[in-house]
Amino acid sequence: MDDAALKSIWEAPFETAPTLRDIEAAAQRIRGHARRTPLLNAPLLDAEAGRRVWVKAECLQLTGSFKFRGAFATISGMPEAERARGVLAFSSGNHAQGMAHAAALHGIPCVIVMPHDAPAVKIERTRAYGAEVVLYRRGEEDRDAVGAALAGERGLTLVKPFDDGRVMAGQGTCGLEIGEDLPEGVSEVLVCCGGGGLTAGTALALEGRATVRPAEPDGYDDVARSLTSGRIERNETEVGGLCDAILTPAPGALPFAAMRRLCGPGAVVTEAEALRAMAAAWRHLRIVLEPGGAVALAAALYREGPDCVAVASGGNVDRATFERALAEG
Amino acid sequence: MDDAALKSIWEAPFETAPTLRDIEAAAQRIRGHARRTPLLNAPLLDAEAGRRVWVKAECLQLTGSFKFRGAFATISGMPEAERARGVLAFSSGNHAQGMAHAAALHGIPCVIVMPHDAPAVKIERTRAYGAEVVLYRRGEEDRDAVGAALAGERGLTLVKPFDDGRVMAGQGTCGLEIGEDLPEGVSEVLVCCGGGGLTAGTALALEGRATVRPAEPDGYDDVARSLTSGRIERNETEVGGLCDAILTPAPGALPFAAMRRLCGPGAVVTEAEALRAMAAAWRHLRIVLEPGGAVALAAALYREGPDCVAVASGGNVDRATFERALAEG
Repeated sequence: MDDAALKSIWEAPFETAPTLRDIEAAAQRIRGHARRTPLLNAPLLDAEAGRRVWVKAECLQLTGSFKFRGAFATISGMPEAERARGVLAFSSGNHAQGMAHAAALHGIPCVIVMPHDAPAVKIERTRAYGAEVVLYRRGEEDRDAVGAALAGERGLTLVKPFDDGRVMAGQGTCGLEIGEDLPEGVSEVLVCCGGGGLTAGTALALEGRATVRPAEPDGYDDVARSLTSGRIERNETEVGGLCDAILTPAPGALPFAAMRRLCGPGAVVTEAEALRAMAAAWRHLRIVLEPGGAVALAAALYREGPDCVAVASGGNVDRATFERALAEG
Repeated sequence: MDDAALKSIWEAPFETAPTLRDIEAAAQRIRGHARRTPLLNAPLLDAEAGRRVWVKAECLQLTGSFKFRGAFATISGMPEAERARGVLAFSSGNHAQGMAHAAALHGIPCVIVMPHDAPAVKIERTRAYGAEVVLYRRGEEDRDAVGAALAGERGLTLVKPFDDGRVMAGQGTCGLEIGEDLPEGVSEVLVCCGGGGLTAGTALALEGRATVRPAEPDGYDDVARSLTSGRIERNETEVGGLCDAILTPAPGALPFAAMRRLCGPGAVVTEAEALRAMAAAWRHLRIVLEPGGAVALAAALYREGPDCVAVASGGNVDRATFERALAEG
């Protein structure tokens, strides 16, 4: 496959940010399929934060993270013939699970491409949701080429995790729900931020009603720095961290354009604070968060600010990490 | 205080079961104050159960259990002058926390009477919700006399944990919500059962639409045995157990009358199964349950039956017990 053909598969037609209308249309399509997650609060959590905090519990979403919204919205919005051929994603994490389950609900094929050394439990779980997992040898094979070959042969549509207007519209439905439930006088919304799909979607859905601020872990504050400099900045660290769900090298171009226009300054927290926030969520709200899904709550708890909403974006966490959080919190 | 006076305080006017109309009136009063909890499901949980299971996540209720419903409904339904004098409860558990927070939201005094050797964390938490905690020396002082003296002096109204029609009406609001969300074709509802307030309230709310079945831990199956024999049976064991939230010596007279008329046979699970159900809820639904709040889910997972709703009644659990559940599950 030549570069132009590969580019045409990868960069198909979704290079514009969604409008509010696109997000509302996505909300119509996911209604009755995605879960409308609750906004939780607790007096003892407020006492710990020193401000009132409402938590948008996306960990309660199907497949355990907001990713199901974007996946279902994208698949349900495809032309029938395209959808029937199936979808493809590169992910070993929350996007993989969201895509696998959304595809299964549509009864269409879903291929998830993962490195051969992905944790067995993630491979297993993605298969349990009904997807076909294709492994590539990291370091020997080129991920994109493996995916492009599969997509070309079988006519699968690639669904990127965040740099895609359809996906951003799906994630924005989380923002619409926050807007419907927004407590009086609250105008700050903290969002756990990786590539920016959820943050940008939420900011677009809440434009004019609330200021959305991305939250990131220390050392992976590419979005905070990008918002400060006004251009896309990359993380220096390539190695992983506890907040793996939101560790992307840099914000996506499409989400960044929206975040730059709409978002307030980024909040940065430590891994230890993310773990303490997981323990606080366990104790006061009785929900399970993963470290990357707890950074917005950590910012709400351990940074100063007005009353706010914090999006708890995911809860897919292994036992050892969860027990570490309970021990530190 | 003579016996008749004591009796008049303790057995005041709420000796009849609520009607559907009483439950609907309670629902009106708690609206916007109690949380409307979601009905959660997950494909991987269904796979583990071998049937479809929807979990009514009352652990997400304010104060972490359904008890807030009965407390708020009872206080909000009192005549103004009575309410203003304040309320009294005997509890060191979920009823104490529910009462404390419901009273605080009404701005009225709340006295919680606990044994002097209650765990420090329970005393602390009840105080944090704004209640006055009065300790009595277990074995030396008579709990009822301590409470009666306080109630007499200060005009406080006793709110019992389950054997009270007002409280049952409040707990029944959980059943109304289940009825509103009931998936098509589902007609079995499993409920964690102690004294029977939640089970009876839910059965009254769902009368004619679903069969409610109480779930209890092994060795504390007083309700299951009472339903079989047709009269109130007591537990033989006096010592505590992991499922402390639902370990009552026998069903309350008022709830039992309703359960006898409306409920299907009781389900009995082991403590080990309750712990495994906590782990399943953590993994697949990302919610935190206490052992007593997980027995209905355990029955759904580890007993055979049709598609069902399981009420997860509470999530106030200490770290050691929670980690034990993760280790066993």
